[in-house]
Amino acid sequence: MENLKNDLFLRACKKEPIDRTPIWIMRQAGRYLPEYRAVRANSDFKTMVKTPELATEVTLQPVDIIGVDAAIIFSDILVIPEALGMNYEMVESHGPSFDWTISSESDFNKLSKSDLSDKLSYVFEALKLTKKELNGRVPLIGFAGSPWTLLTYMVEGGGSKNFSKIKSLIFNNPTLAHKLLDLISETVSEYLSLKIKSGVNAVQIFDTWGGLLSPDLYKEFSLNYIQKVIAKVERTDEPIISYAKGIHHSMNGLANTGADVISIDWTHNIGKVRRQIGDKVAIQGNLDPTVLYGSIDVIRREAVKVLDSYGKGSGHIFNLGHGILPDISPANTKALVEIVKEESKRYH
Amino acid sequence: MENLKNDLFLRACKKEPIDRTPIWIMRQAGRYLPEYRAVRANSDFKTMVKTPELATEVTLQPVDIIGVDAAIIFSDILVIPEALGMNYEMVESHGPSFDWTISSESDFNKLSKSDLSDKLSYVFEALKLTKKELNGRVPLIGFAGSPWTLLTYMVEGGGSKNFSKIKSLIFNNPTLAHKLLDLISETVSEYLSLKIKSGVNAVQIFDTWGGLLSPDLYKEFSLNYIQKVIAKVERTDEPIISYAKGIHHSMNGLANTGADVISIDWTHNIGKVRRQIGDKVAIQGNLDPTVLYGSIDVIRREAVKVLDSYGKGSGHIFNLGHGILPDISPANTKALVEIVKEESKRYH
Repeated sequence: MENLKNDLFLRACKKEPIDRTPIWIMRQAGRYLPEYRAVRANSDFKTMVKTPELATEVTLQPVDIIGVDAAIIFSDILVIPEALGMNYEMVESHGPSFDWTISSESDFNKLSKSDLSDKLSYVFEALKLTKKELNGRVPLIGFAGSPWTLLTYMVEGGGSKNFSKIKSLIFNNPTLAHKLLDLISETVSEYLSLKIKSGVNAVQIFDTWGGLLSPDLYKEFSLNYIQKVIAKVERTDEPIISYAKGIHHSMNGLANTGADVISIDWTHNIGKVRRQIGDKVAIQGNLDPTVLYGSIDVIRREAVKVLDSYGKGSGHIFNLGHGILPDISPANTKALVEIVKEESKRYH
Repeated sequence: MENLKNDLFLRACKKEPIDRTPIWIMRQAGRYLPEYRAVRANSDFKTMVKTPELATEVTLQPVDIIGVDAAIIFSDILVIPEALGMNYEMVESHGPSFDWTISSESDFNKLSKSDLSDKLSYVFEALKLTKKELNGRVPLIGFAGSPWTLLTYMVEGGGSKNFSKIKSLIFNNPTLAHKLLDLISETVSEYLSLKIKSGVNAVQIFDTWGGLLSPDLYKEFSLNYIQKVIAKVERTDEPIISYAKGIHHSMNGLANTGADVISIDWTHNIGKVRRQIGDKVAIQGNLDPTVLYGSIDVIRREAVKVLDSYGKGSGHIFNLGHGILPDISPANTKALVEIVKEESKRYH
């Protein structure tokens, strides 16, 4: 077992006793940091994702600059659709755009399950290099999109306002949707297993679009596949975090997928969620990302509200309820980390 | 008291016995109807809003074509900021855009509370004309934006991705935010009172952006002001409907605002909400608008799920969980209305 200098994050995931609450920040390797923008000025987003040295560099930045308790590899959830044969571009101030999209059985047949360890070797190399550079300072997190979220991108071809294509698919051809979700789930499981083999200490599954679905359909098309992914991931004791955006109806369902941690958005009262799911899993979250627009006093007040709502004991990983916004000041972000480190002591 | 030929909608709002569930559809006077697009081809959106004859014409279309149990006046929530001195344009395939936005106390001082009955006379004329043309066939609904939703537009200047300006305002200058919300609440109450005086049979308050807020802040900045608006509306027995998008944490709070009906989005199990709030208020909703992309069989299955989830008895107004989408087929919409009329009988 690796000797980590700071294993608070992993201990909190397992609800083991700790002396303060760990914190990391979703999208912490990102545009709000001038140091990130400096790297980005010379390379486009996909080049950064595909170049292990660059991915490692920006992954380490928040550890060095902001002082978070975990690193998360800089990468993109859409490398999985790409590995299945769907090329995409990241269009400046617009988002991802796929060359082609899936709408029929014949599109399904165009997908090719290739050897991930070869096709995505740049990810595994970036992980190994990052582990080396981290040198045990903090744990490293790997991640993937949930099958439903990846399918949404593959069918819509990018972002969407009304998500009419993916919704049409599940209403008009649920059999094809399930076939696609099966394929994606298998691929995601294999991908996360390979990440763990490459040295990550935990993995997070991002379900960004589960909130589009009514409770029944969420269970059928998203939750069930998150559960399938988790069941098949090969791991020893690496925790799995399941991030659910806009989900309020299925907290117990999420806590029963086999995930060790559920990660919730800021529209929840974290203490209520804790009481609702009992002691089954740890909880990550859930500060409103826009609190970081406030003064240090506001940040302290709102951060303490979250700590206080969760209450005493282990099992809380402090985080935002969604990714940090690109126009947030690094100074405020650093202040949040320090506030949580200091204020959380009295809850342990 | 007016003699309505079909008062199912009003009776359901008051939970009085009825022999089937009434249905109307949010944004039913809209782009999915070729007859609406024909009117729109000759007049821009704001001209339609400001011309009583045109507003009346498109308001009546869904009653004639789709067979809904209530009409809702064609208008725009942003006439209120405009009456307060903020001009806006509706930009094609982009949305509203204000000439100026509010960020400081001096901006607040630029707002002018004018005489609504004069400034918005076109709305009240459209209501009177529509009542005349409806001739008692179905009730007429008037509406307004919630204070929080209107403030969001007035501060952001239009739609937004991250809502950073409104969030900065409430974190950094809550006093100004409350001052603005007080002014808007008063104006909205007066506006809804004038609508009732002009003959509408019910009013709906749209809180489109309440879901941006954490539970505490939702109560402080949105729910409290909805309650203030409702308390001040002058009415005899006209029901008030409170529409909440993306709100899951405050169903009881919403049911206690004084509203007669709460209107919920499709991420809720409507039966669960009914059990949670008890028999306090009626519930409107909550079919996923994208179900209308499905076949008639899918529409029937999903509509029956909603009816069945609400269960037996009055107090349910069938509706979508959000506005109808512009690319939905009118035939499917009409089929939904017929399905609800037919299938709902056995729940009464």
